[in-house]
Amino acid sequence: MSKKRAVVLLSGGLDSATTLAIARTQGFDSYCLSFEYGQRHSAEVKFAKKVASHLGAQEFRVARIDIGAFGGSALTDMDIDVPVGPRATKTQADASQDEIPITYVPARNTIFLSYALGWAEVLGASDIFIGVNAVDYSGYPDCRPEFISAFESMANLATRVGIEGARITIRTPLIDLRKEEIITLGMSLGVDYSITVSCYQLDSKGISCGVCESCQIRKAGFDKAGTRDPTRYS
Amino acid sequence: MSKKRAVVLLSGGLDSATTLAIARTQGFDSYCLSFEYGQRHSAEVKFAKKVASHLGAQEFRVARIDIGAFGGSALTDMDIDVPVGPRATKTQADASQDEIPITYVPARNTIFLSYALGWAEVLGASDIFIGVNAVDYSGYPDCRPEFISAFESMANLATRVGIEGARITIRTPLIDLRKEEIITLGMSLGVDYSITVSCYQLDSKGISCGVCESCQIRKAGFDKAGTRDPTRYS
Repeated sequence: MSKKRAVVLLSGGLDSATTLAIARTQGFDSYCLSFEYGQRHSAEVKFAKKVASHLGAQEFRVARIDIGAFGGSALTDMDIDVPVGPRATKTQADASQDEIPITYVPARNTIFLSYALGWAEVLGASDIFIGVNAVDYSGYPDCRPEFISAFESMANLATRVGIEGARITIRTPLIDLRKEEIITLGMSLGVDYSITVSCYQLDSKGISCGVCESCQIRKAGFDKAGTRDPTRYS
Repeated sequence: MSKKRAVVLLSGGLDSATTLAIARTQGFDSYCLSFEYGQRHSAEVKFAKKVASHLGAQEFRVARIDIGAFGGSALTDMDIDVPVGPRATKTQADASQDEIPITYVPARNTIFLSYALGWAEVLGASDIFIGVNAVDYSGYPDCRPEFISAFESMANLATRVGIEGARITIRTPLIDLRKEEIITLGMSLGVDYSITVSCYQLDSKGISCGVCESCQIRKAGFDKAGTRDPTRYS
């Protein structure tokens, strides 16, 4: 019998690497999808490729997309500064009261999941894995469980798969984990975090700034997990 | 007071041109979005641009995307032949019993609407117009009203807009119209159908084949509307 297939969204970051390790542990042949979308830290795609190979993915593809053309985010718009320094970690409950950060890319996870859905349909994959997290949530609306659930409902109406009786399941194994729990879990599954990156302003050599919000969350996570942080900081 | 804004998905075809005319008639400043996605008939984007200008759109953008990389459709995969000849027109009720045609592009409308959502968020647009149709429905799962409704629910959880209290509405003014009704409506709104194209295998000069399914539906529509078909057929 052929193995079950999953599309796994892979960014080169810590969360998506752990998510891929979980998909592999659950027995999925994993088809990894990364994006180049005009982000400042496009070097992350090279890390994603290393991670896919390291964790035994079936296939790794990069889709080049035009999100950046719309502007409106510090991650794609060179006219907006990336915020620097630590931020209070938010819970989902805080979200509606808080400002959404300027690093938010409009409809990013919706677009990523839509591509994953298209590839899943072609592959006959039943599952899509995405490493979103509602704890270290940072105020992004498209990381919330209710968004994921609505996307899954829509996906099962959008596709041939949905009509023909099979179902697509969107899996978010990290959604309730704190960063240190993600790291501890990943270590137990053999993830090599030295080939992952989290920095919002990664340089072309793959060196992290150490000061942006994302670097701060990553550092604190390794700290709380009581594990050495293998990241190369400038 | 500034006018309300809408993102209008524009393909260069008859349906989306009519949809744009409706959005303009309803008083929307219209931001038109087309896609280059490795489709056979990429010349259609040039027609989309003409239509946007003809109907007084505020802006016209083309997003270049990688759907074609996944393969699996006769519209993007050069190894699969486009079916030629008339097909029985299907109603929505038939859909689940019928085979989905080989011209179906996996998750296409999901991806298109996701991009539209991203741009809508940046623009502060409240509405997205898409010219889907459930009558001349051709068996595409992502043209059904229940798909559109699920997408709208998801969109309002996906975005900053959704969190901050405003709502995104997905408008499908053609969904219940027969092709001849669409044409009659468009003519009454001043749409010049000679600058629209429907052919699945449009040549590089913008000449339609006249024999593919889409040309057949178009021809029959003009026929039933009792109007001259201004399309250039080979």
